[in-house]
Amino acid sequence: MEKFVYDFEEGNRGLKDLLGGKGANLAEMTNLGLPVPPGFTITTDACREYLRTGEVSARDEIEQHLATLEGKMGRKLGNPSDPLLVSVRSGAKFSMPGMMETVLNVGLTDESVAGLAAQAGGDERFAWDSYRRLIQMFGKTVCGVPGEEFDHALDDAKHARGTRDDVGLDADALKGLVGTYKEIFRRHTGRAFPQDPREQLDLAIGAVFGSWNAERAVLYRRQERIPADLGTAVNVVAMVFGNLGSDSGTGVAFTRDPATGEKGVYGDYLPNAQGEDVVAGIRNTMPLQELEQLDKRSYDELMAIMAKLEEHYLDLCDIEFTIERGKLWMLQTRVGKRTAAAAFVIATHLVDEGVIDLDEATKRVNGNQLAQLMFPTFDLSEEPEQLTRGVGASPGAASGKAVFDAQHAVAMAKEGEQVILVRRETNPDDLPGMIAAQGILTSRGGKTSHAAVVARGMGKTCVCGADELEVNVHKGQFTVNGHVVSEGDVISIDGTTGRVYLGEVSVQPSPVVQYFEGTLDPQADPLVSAVHRILAHADERRRLRVRTNADTGEDAARARRFGAQGIGLCRTEHMFLGERRALVERLILARTAVERDAALDELLPLQRSDFIELFRAMAGLPVTVRLIDPPLHEFLPPLEDLAVKVAVAEERGQDPGHDKDLLDAVRRMHEENPMLGLRGVRLGLVIPGLFAMQVRAIVEAAAQVPDARPEIMVPLVGAVQELETIRAEAEKIIHEFDVEVKIGTMIEVPRAALTAGDIAQAADFFSFGTNDLTQMGWGFSRDDVEGAFFWRYLELGIFGVSPFESIDRDGVGRLVRIAVEEGRAARPDLHFGVCGEHGGDPDSVHFFDEVGLDYVSCSPFRVPVARLEAGRAAIESTGSDSR
Amino acid sequence: MEKFVYDFEEGNRGLKDLLGGKGANLAEMTNLGLPVPPGFTITTDACREYLRTGEVSARDEIEQHLATLEGKMGRKLGNPSDPLLVSVRSGAKFSMPGMMETVLNVGLTDESVAGLAAQAGGDERFAWDSYRRLIQMFGKTVCGVPGEEFDHALDDAKHARGTRDDVGLDADALKGLVGTYKEIFRRHTGRAFPQDPREQLDLAIGAVFGSWNAERAVLYRRQERIPADLGTAVNVVAMVFGNLGSDSGTGVAFTRDPATGEKGVYGDYLPNAQGEDVVAGIRNTMPLQELEQLDKRSYDELMAIMAKLEEHYLDLCDIEFTIERGKLWMLQTRVGKRTAAAAFVIATHLVDEGVIDLDEATKRVNGNQLAQLMFPTFDLSEEPEQLTRGVGASPGAASGKAVFDAQHAVAMAKEGEQVILVRRETNPDDLPGMIAAQGILTSRGGKTSHAAVVARGMGKTCVCGADELEVNVHKGQFTVNGHVVSEGDVISIDGTTGRVYLGEVSVQPSPVVQYFEGTLDPQADPLVSAVHRILAHADERRRLRVRTNADTGEDAARARRFGAQGIGLCRTEHMFLGERRALVERLILARTAVERDAALDELLPLQRSDFIELFRAMAGLPVTVRLIDPPLHEFLPPLEDLAVKVAVAEERGQDPGHDKDLLDAVRRMHEENPMLGLRGVRLGLVIPGLFAMQVRAIVEAAAQVPDARPEIMVPLVGAVQELETIRAEAEKIIHEFDVEVKIGTMIEVPRAALTAGDIAQAADFFSFGTNDLTQMGWGFSRDDVEGAFFWRYLELGIFGVSPFESIDRDGVGRLVRIAVEEGRAARPDLHFGVCGEHGGDPDSVHFFDEVGLDYVSCSPFRVPVARLEAGRAAIESTGSDSR
Repeated sequence: MEKFVYDFEEGNRGLKDLLGGKGANLAEMTNLGLPVPPGFTITTDACREYLRTGEVSARDEIEQHLATLEGKMGRKLGNPSDPLLVSVRSGAKFSMPGMMETVLNVGLTDESVAGLAAQAGGDERFAWDSYRRLIQMFGKTVCGVPGEEFDHALDDAKHARGTRDDVGLDADALKGLVGTYKEIFRRHTGRAFPQDPREQLDLAIGAVFGSWNAERAVLYRRQERIPADLGTAVNVVAMVFGNLGSDSGTGVAFTRDPATGEKGVYGDYLPNAQGEDVVAGIRNTMPLQELEQLDKRSYDELMAIMAKLEEHYLDLCDIEFTIERGKLWMLQTRVGKRTAAAAFVIATHLVDEGVIDLDEATKRVNGNQLAQLMFPTFDLSEEPEQLTRGVGASPGAASGKAVFDAQHAVAMAKEGEQVILVRRETNPDDLPGMIAAQGILTSRGGKTSHAAVVARGMGKTCVCGADELEVNVHKGQFTVNGHVVSEGDVISIDGTTGRVYLGEVSVQPSPVVQYFEGTLDPQADPLVSAVHRILAHADERRRLRVRTNADTGEDAARARRFGAQGIGLCRTEHMFLGERRALVERLILARTAVERDAALDELLPLQRSDFIELFRAMAGLPVTVRLIDPPLHEFLPPLEDLAVKVAVAEERGQDPGHDKDLLDAVRRMHEENPMLGLRGVRLGLVIPGLFAMQVRAIVEAAAQVPDARPEIMVPLVGAVQELETIRAEAEKIIHEFDVEVKIGTMIEVPRAALTAGDIAQAADFFSFGTNDLTQMGWGFSRDDVEGAFFWRYLELGIFGVSPFESIDRDGVGRLVRIAVEEGRAARPDLHFGVCGEHGGDPDSVHFFDEVGLDYVSCSPFRVPVARLEAGRAAIESTGSDSR
Repeated sequence: MEKFVYDFEEGNRGLKDLLGGKGANLAEMTNLGLPVPPGFTITTDACREYLRTGEVSARDEIEQHLATLEGKMGRKLGNPSDPLLVSVRSGAKFSMPGMMETVLNVGLTDESVAGLAAQAGGDERFAWDSYRRLIQMFGKTVCGVPGEEFDHALDDAKHARGTRDDVGLDADALKGLVGTYKEIFRRHTGRAFPQDPREQLDLAIGAVFGSWNAERAVLYRRQERIPADLGTAVNVVAMVFGNLGSDSGTGVAFTRDPATGEKGVYGDYLPNAQGEDVVAGIRNTMPLQELEQLDKRSYDELMAIMAKLEEHYLDLCDIEFTIERGKLWMLQTRVGKRTAAAAFVIATHLVDEGVIDLDEATKRVNGNQLAQLMFPTFDLSEEPEQLTRGVGASPGAASGKAVFDAQHAVAMAKEGEQVILVRRETNPDDLPGMIAAQGILTSRGGKTSHAAVVARGMGKTCVCGADELEVNVHKGQFTVNGHVVSEGDVISIDGTTGRVYLGEVSVQPSPVVQYFEGTLDPQADPLVSAVHRILAHADERRRLRVRTNADTGEDAARARRFGAQGIGLCRTEHMFLGERRALVERLILARTAVERDAALDELLPLQRSDFIELFRAMAGLPVTVRLIDPPLHEFLPPLEDLAVKVAVAEERGQDPGHDKDLLDAVRRMHEENPMLGLRGVRLGLVIPGLFAMQVRAIVEAAAQVPDARPEIMVPLVGAVQELETIRAEAEKIIHEFDVEVKIGTMIEVPRAALTAGDIAQAADFFSFGTNDLTQMGWGFSRDDVEGAFFWRYLELGIFGVSPFESIDRDGVGRLVRIAVEEGRAARPDLHFGVCGEHGGDPDSVHFFDEVGLDYVSCSPFRVPVARLEAGRAAIESTGSDSR
């Protein structure tokens, strides 16, 4: 028969699937001999069974384990004179803070409340307060009684006693309140508050199981991509009380500083209190160090336990504990959350302490953390005034005038003002304002809200869900913690920490970037030293090479300093902008081959000098140049503007002149869906001489630069015949020179992936253009959909993260797999890379390592991120584990 | 050792891969005991070897077979007194008419010319004419001498003799011409015309092999999708002469009428002539019947041979023959080409004659032929004047005023004129004119030219490559065979036959369509009777069901008469047009939920009545309704127009009023790539109530119509979660009624195919939207690319046929396969259909049968085509063969 219930002695931290995170760690601590209140865990299997059948099975098992618990405690559930009380706590595999239910003080009844008072040395007030808390929590959680009814009754009682504080209610008052609570309970449930402690327990267990499918939990899981069928475990734990007097108390502790990673004692303690009081913030906590004065024995014991936990978990742990009349109880531990900087510092400290090796240290940090460390930050030494804190939704540090309306934002930005757009929440109509602003601040919504998704897509700083803000769009102001901020007042937002400051705050460069740029010695700063060591190790371990996407010598040089091993994507169309636009215009308007060739002839030396610059910056390393990709009409003014200009001129009786020719050309070349139109290789096949000019510029440049390693990449190929035709044309030119040039293709059209075996016959390399592959694989264009409906898709859990941020493994990723497998089978020496933005995304880098690409290419600032993640991927795939 | 040469006695018609079509059939006739001039075939293997090495291998084998040939003929190659002459003819597996080379009279030299004259009873003129023909053909074909040099010399000789005709040149004149030709040969090749007959033969064989890779042949193969590596065989055949006097002659014959399919003697005969004279059209041929008077013995023999060939080939054969001094020789036969009507009539006649069964008859016709028979045709009983004939590139019959310029075409069409756009060739700038015209006529280019491709895409009548036309755009006229047609003159073009007529010709409806419509009895017409019988058989044999794409009751009723077994695609957006546009506008401009719901409430009864009509027309059969697919802004005016309207109004100081609101909305909703934007299921997820309104209208309509079988189809799904969400919403509404409704999805986004196993979990059926799947799979939108570059792609052979016409099996087809396999594995009862335009394309229907779909759905007029092809596919896959 399946086992549904585990005493803490029976579990261990490896059983998180079965016992949930909390239960597994309580078991681990129990078996380490740490003072954990006795208890047992009902498994996630039982939860799944409950969700299927609506019944808590394993009632016999629970009975047995309860008996064991009663034996350990020497108290019985429901014993009127000396009752055992238990807490019933949820605990899923993955932390879902605040999403599921907990019921405390289970076991209290009209009878046993007196017994509890006796246990507490005759503290009647404590006993009745515990009882009213049980009725309140049980009524709300288990029976769905509206919580505000209890809140109102409590407020009334306080009002009657003339007190604003719970503590102002004495035992009699609480006794009366229990009566009121029980009537509320009866009115809403049609029955009396259950006086059978075993029934209380069973109902509480069912309620916790059921809370797995509460709406907010479902939503949270969708957003966090936690599978819906895991279920939660339930922990039934003997109650201990931190609120039994000054020799009692409760606290949280970290084994190292979770902010900086430094060693030392970090934590807070609150005497004569329960955990929920800390959360409610009724009194101020004291630094954990002060506990040494209050209760040296408990303090020393706690320090010893913390050392033991670190030694055991080999990492920073965070801890919840309670002291009941001088006796220390451990209520929870886990490997603790930490800042990005602390993650690097702790990892290298642990290496120095001999606790873990560098492989493990590298696994303990990640690219998102490294990316955070590369943003400039506010100079907090100026002690700016913090207004509030929200969710850091898109990193960066931005200051500007608060503005509450997208149109105002656009208007002010046009006048050169820096603005921060402040909204309750954003919607697609706010897009122009978001584009115009330095940053976005909202009072509602989390990391997957419209504002957050769009801001990340734009790389714009964003703080979301700052719920203390009261935004009044009509008045053009927001209020927060007593401050009123009006339109035009300057605020500053930190998209990493979520903090919001009043006034402008100076921005300081990232020391990590200074180190990459070579202007800061790695030994000068513990964080930079940690980054340096871990990246060096990642470089040693990784199989994937890391190139960069760069179109200028400057970008290329920076990327090389950041560790790039070549250019994976140079977009030549960026060389068609600025003053050269006029030449492109001539090319487009050419009515004869002679005119067209003349325009191309003028472009040739310009392109050649661009390439010379690039090849010099990357001498000795490969430089992949993509032939022109976007439709040529993108270089002309928008149809709407031209049409209006010409119509207005004609209306005024003026001659629209050149604009009329341009308008005709734009109309002729207009495409309903330019993304799916005449672009990429199609341009090369349809416009004589265009690709030839580019190829010649590349080859002539390469012939002039020692150690140039050019590679030519043909975009948007869907059929091998396209590539063959261009290849034949290019090879004729290449053979005029003594230069070796590889010719390959983007794989960015689904058909290219599906016929990769054929296309490989004409390619020296494949480079996955995962942006286009995502657009065409899903059938949506990034520009059109991210602002229009991605927020809704994230809300509905259709995806957990935008497929433009992180590669969609099942769909788009499958195309990549097919192309790698079939391309390599057809041509074993084929090289594979990726040059879409996914090349710098941590999760995607792991995927690309897994499918066997040779390199990833990303923007210069993402190069270190990719190096780190490529190293981590290699370590994970070789299964190294120092523990 | 590999055998490279086959005597005709050694081959048979099954060896087409090796011997080519001509060689295999000559062997077949030889072995049937028919009078074929002796000869042998050098294989395609030898050709491939030649193309690899540049050498004709197997010289010894050729030597041996030549000796055998000499033995049979009792003459030796190069014997001065009684020479053997041979023809050296190409012959590939697939007919490539006029693409490769032939050399006649090989073996003639300065010496043997006299022997030939002796053989011809002292006919010196004949001998010297044969010699000059050899030098001309050999010089041009084998040695690359420019043909016009010989032509000029011939013209000069005729001029000198004061004759316009070859026949006007006597033996002396021809002797002189041979001298001139030999000098031309020496000047261009640097050597004398070879006097070694064996060398002549070897060089001719090499030249024919080499002609496989001539540019025009390469281009032809690309366009016809003939593999490049097949090679051609070479046939070396003893020469026979039809030009040795009145007891000689040459002709072609068909065993049945290739135009109507009726039995009887059909053919042409030209006394005292060679085959090339027939082609040159120097004299008029006589009907074959008249040969009976001229040479009854040969005529009777020919009739007997024709009967024997039909009995042997079980089909219409066409024949080339020569009579040399009363002796009949068979030069070629093959299963003959025929018109669409003849194909049906012959197939059923052969069934009635007991020659083949109905399975075989069904295989002998195809959907393209049936489709041709469904177009209206010109009434030729009016005996219109035929101007010329080109390539029938897009079927139909169109009359209108000739116009030579796209802009004129647009202007005249605006004034209500019907026009035919006449151009040398078209290019993308002509698109507006092509849209405005009734039909398109060009003097250059074939079935894959820009004009042809675009016209077929538009379903517009087109005749291409009418190369007798001399189009003068500047004068606004064309001349042809002495006629001058100026802009504004009416012409008529038949896109099926390629014929061009002067003046307007009446159009008569297709009898086949009249039969489908029920207005013509199938027994009334032999063609209709044949179509009726074969379609009935196809219906009996096919596994695929055939549905139709229809949005109105009228279309649905017609399709049902045409044999549709339900509706596979009803596009609900078509119900949002016309007067209802105003409601959609209100829906879009709604600023509150109340306004939006009000607009939806008004749309509901309108949609409901549409569905009632459809369900009635298809009572008892399934009706698949697709929820709205296109972006809503498509229902608003174009951005450019609105912007100009508002700008001009403002310029005039007028209030643009409602237009301004519309412009704001259009700007807000503008998408760069609407195909990849907020459409399909995304609309349903983002706009509350929209899909619910449609579902309610469907269900309410179904509740009112007995035997309604509605199916709801969700468009553009890429992830199962999308479908799950819509399904849940729809089921709530469906459950309010006592109606059974299947819910399925389009598979039209590549990701849907790639994750079909997941999507199947929430779908009752998949319907492949192969239009979108093609657009996204290749990354091009049909509207933008067909006119812009498909002509170039077809020219380059990147594809042989537009992937929008016929499904791309390797790329898009692979997605279909994946989705069928994985969808069915996940859910064995899943139903599969296709509703893209490929559902009515013959080749695609075979593919859909092969991958195991349950039905295809196509436009009403394509339903009979799909029925026929589905039957043919079933017959082919079960391997039935009556022969």
